[in-house]
Amino acid sequence: MRIVVLAGGIGGARFLLGVRAVARETGADVTAVINVGDDVTLHGLRICPDLDSVMYTLGGGADPERGWGRVGETWTVKDELAAYGAEPTWFGLGDKDIATHLVRTRMLEAGYPLSAVTEALCDRWQPGVRMLPASDDRVETHAVVEVDGATRAIHFQEWWIRYRAGIPTQRFVFVGAETAKPAAGVLDAIAAADVVLVAPSNPVVSIAPILAVPAVREAVATGPAPVAGFSPIIGSAPVRGMADKCLEVMGVECSPAGVGGLLGARSAGGVLDAWLVDESDAGAQVPGLTVRAVPLWMTDEAATATMVRDALATVGVA
Amino acid sequence: MRIVVLAGGIGGARFLLGVRAVARETGADVTAVINVGDDVTLHGLRICPDLDSVMYTLGGGADPERGWGRVGETWTVKDELAAYGAEPTWFGLGDKDIATHLVRTRMLEAGYPLSAVTEALCDRWQPGVRMLPASDDRVETHAVVEVDGATRAIHFQEWWIRYRAGIPTQRFVFVGAETAKPAAGVLDAIAAADVVLVAPSNPVVSIAPILAVPAVREAVATGPAPVAGFSPIIGSAPVRGMADKCLEVMGVECSPAGVGGLLGARSAGGVLDAWLVDESDAGAQVPGLTVRAVPLWMTDEAATATMVRDALATVGVA
Repeated sequence: MRIVVLAGGIGGARFLLGVRAVARETGADVTAVINVGDDVTLHGLRICPDLDSVMYTLGGGADPERGWGRVGETWTVKDELAAYGAEPTWFGLGDKDIATHLVRTRMLEAGYPLSAVTEALCDRWQPGVRMLPASDDRVETHAVVEVDGATRAIHFQEWWIRYRAGIPTQRFVFVGAETAKPAAGVLDAIAAADVVLVAPSNPVVSIAPILAVPAVREAVATGPAPVAGFSPIIGSAPVRGMADKCLEVMGVECSPAGVGGLLGARSAGGVLDAWLVDESDAGAQVPGLTVRAVPLWMTDEAATATMVRDALATVGVA
Repeated sequence: MRIVVLAGGIGGARFLLGVRAVARETGADVTAVINVGDDVTLHGLRICPDLDSVMYTLGGGADPERGWGRVGETWTVKDELAAYGAEPTWFGLGDKDIATHLVRTRMLEAGYPLSAVTEALCDRWQPGVRMLPASDDRVETHAVVEVDGATRAIHFQEWWIRYRAGIPTQRFVFVGAETAKPAAGVLDAIAAADVVLVAPSNPVVSIAPILAVPAVREAVATGPAPVAGFSPIIGSAPVRGMADKCLEVMGVECSPAGVGGLLGARSAGGVLDAWLVDESDAGAQVPGLTVRAVPLWMTDEAATATMVRDALATVGVA
């Protein structure tokens, strides 16, 4: 069995732990197509938060308490940069993390595409799944906001970390997406997949930027594999993160049905065949989708693996 | 009084502590023209060891035990780079130090010349002397060596740190020096100086690359200010570092007279008027130079300041 997963960062990483567990039982092959919309260059370093969250989590190097970054992280370089007055100071740039960014930046500057850089970094981490960036091109999520009476576009990281999603926001823009191509391997993986899973990641700023690459969306929407998605909303609240604030910007109801409708049924121009919602949300309906209610709390790897098995059963591939 | 000092890294930094002490007594203005021949790009970071040694030492941030780098330094990033297999692993890249290199690299990539970058970094360190790189252009010391039967040129840092100056070496080359221009301010400082001091830095790989910039050498050799140099050799051994190995490559005797002769008298095409040697080397002679024997061990700032006063007196400017 070949499984393709569309995933963002922290939630996507936790979800992939469950997918990997299922794959180890069944001998399945897993390709994770990961959001690059959060990627940013700070202090001259190319930073890919979602790729790194997945790589560190699957590689056993993530901080389980903080949820992002490396376990045992230190902050010497960040403090020193602040002592120089080097902006920005709001980004959590850890010392261990910086080594990843240095290796990545150097390889990118030498001309390697991000997919090749990611593969090289994974030589160390051995995540156990194939990790592909959604695109080797720039697809950068910006928020169009009002600050001090003026409308301007700021990078998603600035909106998310500096402003804690707490400023008037008109919309999100995925800069570069329209002309971006899928990274090498993405289309082949989707075409060869037995199933495509959409992780319970932030639908607006993790999943949407992946699908904003036209050829990725088309491959998922029209490909031979059934597509099952997982609601990142339980009841009316996100499992983690600030999906509620992102959905509010989109004018989409923060509910399993709201997000399911945003992704939409393949039969109606969307990307999903099945939609898994939490058991507490049983009865939710999305036009055109098979909706199944199962426990969706990713409390541990076993619980997450059960979710994955439920999805595979729902679309008839297990 | 206006004092210009030609200086390398660690020895130059210690020497400049003494110069600054004299300047504080006398109200003199000090400009340090610092070697850039050791500068190197590693892991995508632009590293200027001599500028940083001077800046950290005069700014109170240097490690007094190790002699180079920052006090209280940590090595997290270096260990992580090694875990990725990122080469080279032989360079001592500390976490605190990396912040300096990140700020510098980012500014250089934004188009600022090294002299402007150095000034910006010094905003934090307040070294108390004006620090100028010898050149904003590339002047890079390479060693022509024999490794595994082949002749090749390696960066000075590789020769010095990786090979500990312990491989057959034909000569040194200052790549780029012939077409390099002095950094902004260097020629003006030398022209306006009341005295030029040559620090007891390595004559072959610290002082020579400064003077390899044609206009710098000409300004020192033909300028109005008297030039006094300090022997980095006491007896037949360098005060610190590996000047003996560098002199051996040059075929120059490792002695105060040998180094004095290498720098030479201005009256005979060299750059010196006076040459200070250690009191234990009294009697040393260099054609065309006023040689004075005084204590040259830079045991503390006061002893170093006394050396500086001795030099000023020798050339009649104090």
